[in-house]
Amino acid sequence: MTHAAAENRTKSWAEVAPRLVAVAAGRAAADLVIRGGRLVNVQSREILDGWQVAIAEGRFAYVGPDASHCIGEGTEIVEAEGRYLIPGLCDGHMHIESGMLTPAEFAAAVAPHGTTTIFHDPHEIANVLGLAGVRMMHDEALLQPINIYTQMPSCAPSAPGLETTGFAVSAADVAEAMAWPGIIGLGEMMNYPGVIHGDPQMLAEMAATMAAGKTVGGHYASPDRGIPFHAYVAGGPADDHEGTAESDAVARVRQGMRSMMRLGSAWYDVESQITAVTQKGLDPRNFILCTDDCHSGTLVHEGHMNRVVRHAIACGCDPVIALQMATINTATHFGLERELGSIAPGRRADVILTSSLTELPIEAVYARGQLVAEHGEMRVACPHYDWPQSARETVRLGKVLAASDFAIAAPKGANAVKAKVIGVVENQAPTRALTAELPVIGGLVEGENGVCQIALVERHQATGKVVNGFVSGFGYQGEMAIASTVAHDSHHMIVVGTSREMMAKAANRLGEVGGGVTVWKDGKELALVELPIAGLMSDRPAAEVAAKAAAMVEAMAACGCKLNNAYMQHSLLALVVIPELRISDLGLVDVTRFELTELFEPTA
Amino acid sequence: MTHAAAENRTKSWAEVAPRLVAVAAGRAAADLVIRGGRLVNVQSREILDGWQVAIAEGRFAYVGPDASHCIGEGTEIVEAEGRYLIPGLCDGHMHIESGMLTPAEFAAAVAPHGTTTIFHDPHEIANVLGLAGVRMMHDEALLQPINIYTQMPSCAPSAPGLETTGFAVSAADVAEAMAWPGIIGLGEMMNYPGVIHGDPQMLAEMAATMAAGKTVGGHYASPDRGIPFHAYVAGGPADDHEGTAESDAVARVRQGMRSMMRLGSAWYDVESQITAVTQKGLDPRNFILCTDDCHSGTLVHEGHMNRVVRHAIACGCDPVIALQMATINTATHFGLERELGSIAPGRRADVILTSSLTELPIEAVYARGQLVAEHGEMRVACPHYDWPQSARETVRLGKVLAASDFAIAAPKGANAVKAKVIGVVENQAPTRALTAELPVIGGLVEGENGVCQIALVERHQATGKVVNGFVSGFGYQGEMAIASTVAHDSHHMIVVGTSREMMAKAANRLGEVGGGVTVWKDGKELALVELPIAGLMSDRPAAEVAAKAAAMVEAMAACGCKLNNAYMQHSLLALVVIPELRISDLGLVDVTRFELTELFEPTA
Repeated sequence: MTHAAAENRTKSWAEVAPRLVAVAAGRAAADLVIRGGRLVNVQSREILDGWQVAIAEGRFAYVGPDASHCIGEGTEIVEAEGRYLIPGLCDGHMHIESGMLTPAEFAAAVAPHGTTTIFHDPHEIANVLGLAGVRMMHDEALLQPINIYTQMPSCAPSAPGLETTGFAVSAADVAEAMAWPGIIGLGEMMNYPGVIHGDPQMLAEMAATMAAGKTVGGHYASPDRGIPFHAYVAGGPADDHEGTAESDAVARVRQGMRSMMRLGSAWYDVESQITAVTQKGLDPRNFILCTDDCHSGTLVHEGHMNRVVRHAIACGCDPVIALQMATINTATHFGLERELGSIAPGRRADVILTSSLTELPIEAVYARGQLVAEHGEMRVACPHYDWPQSARETVRLGKVLAASDFAIAAPKGANAVKAKVIGVVENQAPTRALTAELPVIGGLVEGENGVCQIALVERHQATGKVVNGFVSGFGYQGEMAIASTVAHDSHHMIVVGTSREMMAKAANRLGEVGGGVTVWKDGKELALVELPIAGLMSDRPAAEVAAKAAAMVEAMAACGCKLNNAYMQHSLLALVVIPELRISDLGLVDVTRFELTELFEPTA
Repeated sequence: MTHAAAENRTKSWAEVAPRLVAVAAGRAAADLVIRGGRLVNVQSREILDGWQVAIAEGRFAYVGPDASHCIGEGTEIVEAEGRYLIPGLCDGHMHIESGMLTPAEFAAAVAPHGTTTIFHDPHEIANVLGLAGVRMMHDEALLQPINIYTQMPSCAPSAPGLETTGFAVSAADVAEAMAWPGIIGLGEMMNYPGVIHGDPQMLAEMAATMAAGKTVGGHYASPDRGIPFHAYVAGGPADDHEGTAESDAVARVRQGMRSMMRLGSAWYDVESQITAVTQKGLDPRNFILCTDDCHSGTLVHEGHMNRVVRHAIACGCDPVIALQMATINTATHFGLERELGSIAPGRRADVILTSSLTELPIEAVYARGQLVAEHGEMRVACPHYDWPQSARETVRLGKVLAASDFAIAAPKGANAVKAKVIGVVENQAPTRALTAELPVIGGLVEGENGVCQIALVERHQATGKVVNGFVSGFGYQGEMAIASTVAHDSHHMIVVGTSREMMAKAANRLGEVGGGVTVWKDGKELALVELPIAGLMSDRPAAEVAAKAAAMVEAMAACGCKLNNAYMQHSLLALVVIPELRISDLGLVDVTRFELTELFEPTA
């Protein structure tokens, strides 16, 4: 049940200060008073029994032992009944697109879990629609009843020269975006080799961000914490969420970066790093919790930042310190400590009622003073942006594909070939560069023994181009294909299949529906997740998308796939920044040498 | 021994990032490497044995276990020989004028003590010269080899309607100043009653500051931590240095303010408040050390922020936490945590070498990568601003004063009067409102029995106006007078004396020299401190000013004064915001009722 959304333009503290002062002084009535609770003060790191809050204009006016002087005609009173008041939770770095949801539906999915602030990097849509797409995400974000700040994506394409994206991000784009109202900084600077080597575009993007007084997000994914790491830090990134070990977290904080520890749907980097605080005793202020990537299923069934905080506590972290890592630490990092992230006068009145600081049940969620969710249900609407046709017509195949588009011709006269094969490895993002002897039938190379075909179908420029290759590790059997327009980071279409007929059907199907994921077997569509916005996102509710995604994963299993994260593996096959072998619109990519490579091994 | 000053325009991290990255990567040589020390990491709260730093362009390029790859031709190498490397110390809030020194000479006095960053509120000169005076202080501050950020004064006059200052600060002035390069925020919002009552000018000044993304300084000097305190906080001040008890510090931090704990020449508020951290266990991040006011004698003989940190440690604070309170905590508060306050890549290379973390001897001081002081001696120049004549001709008496200007006529026909007397109280800022029966001789009221005369001589507008009254508590004897143009906050001239002849001589003397303090006895000048800049500051070195000030205090004693802080008491007699009785250019002020009052009690 939702009500019409309120106007979500947030008035500044300065604008409403006259009323806040009047309320705190007892000259004017508050809009809302919450009393009878226990306040978690993330500034002092205390729990204050019986502290009350008075809220006006969406901000805290009074926080103290007795708000009765703030109560007047029209003041709503909420009895906390001994529950804790904790600040609304902040996700320090994440990608909304990973949920396959628009910002509105993402907000509707996470607010009931207590998330009231998100720092999101719309890196995926940037690859498809460029700055215009970032602006669309930014604009929908600003309509929401929770705070969604946008980090301007820094690296599209992520591997210049090895792939062609729908659009590229330039330093001028970054400079332009820094003036938008909802831009909080630069999205993760993934091109760490570029920074280390002094790439002028990367340095210019960071310079534009720093000149605007905003935060440069980091992404240093190498295990080498020697000289390259130090060179990267000297370039300006202020945080990093790519650490996986305690020593990673320690190294980052010692360099004056903030260590962002993530628990996403497939990231488990909190337990291994939080010992830097819980055991090694480092100052906790520079540690931040985040999700990075959450699938809609995780949001529907497990939670969001409440899941991360609960996990941090389960890992031995003091509950108030864990809450600091998801509230004030995050706010301070982005220069927002006087705007949100704590229960203190002047701040946005983002507050959660919970009856346990360890289990963290999210019983009521207020954002900017408004009850947005209660007992897991949204209580207000999350308004949709009017996505233009340009955002809905991004799967441009240029033609109807046929089985022949997926035919891999053998070298003239060959009876068999030795082909490179992308080897998917269970539970790992890196692939292996394998080779296989494959038979030639009727002039065409055929997969066998677990090697099936992969194709990258160009979908941004309607060139009709299809790049074909081989992949193994999925376990597919029978006549099947799966196609997806979520294909990091270029987001062309990736089709994997055992049958060229099925591959063509799957690809054409996504052309019809404007993108998504489809699974075909024996001539029939087993599952379809429609992602009409940029081929990346649905504007349907998370529960619906999660159900379709679950059916899609089941369909993959029905095709013989046994991998734990089958769909994720599929969607990363074009990610030409992670070793060893990937596919792009330009061909097969050797990601150990960062160069294009031939499909067939030369015959001896 | 000083060298010519370097160009002190600080290039931004972004501007020099290409070189920093190149140095950290080992492709370019650093300007300076410091090795063989123990690095105090205020981010992680660790001491890192053997860590080295490489500096280029005045910023840290590399901070880590081995900087040898940063050394090349032209790299200076400093051997730390087991000493600690600590970040340069920051003074979170202070008034340069209190040292009777210009910013240049203040910088020269404190840099040898390890202070590399100052946040100063030129409130005194604002009362004398208005925005133009603030700009002069700001401009000299930016010439210095250490970082001096200016807080725009918020309250001049401090008591509108009860006094006339040389200039008044308006909200438009504040808005204008926010665009100056060295302005870091708004100076202490002393008009807390105004904030609490929603005074539009005070709220507008804070709004202009917040709109500029800068920090609003607080000053809540009331012991009432109830509703008025909460109303003040709701208005926007982000810090407060007026706390004196643990409960003050706790109250401020719980409200999301930073508690600034001061140890000035006459402020002793660290020991009583730091227990909030050392015993009560509050999160230390929101505690900051500052001096507020330091006399030149303190700077010469005792130190500056090193004195404060050493004292905090002596009070039981962990040395690294105490250092955080004078480095990173301060930097974070002012939005400068990526600019200074820690030894980390990209930050200004402000670093001290010391052989003890508890005694804190300041053995070498680097600011922006330059050796500015060593073993207590400056090694670079602190350039003087070319102060205009308008700043040097601020003592405008309008006439030569005569003894008759200090004559207090009795009501017609009276043989004796009952007069109000400002009662100075040993070791306290508040005065007492006393009364005394005083004899009338030749139609004039005469002081006796420890009651002597006080006069406020108008000196801004050359009106020739003299307001006369009585004061007690100094113990002056014989024929004497003392005059000072340092007279908080309006900085008219205050003359106290037992002889009208001496009072006239003292006042005229300050008119001749352009301001300062002079002590007269039996027709002769015993001591003179010349303060030609705005009547507040000398542009001579601190040691010279301190010696003259000491001679001045001795001269006061020679006149019979036994008070501990005789000169300070003198200079506060016009401070019409502190109870109970004060003097202003408008008359005698009852500071319990905030209104002007008559000198004589009505006869019954």
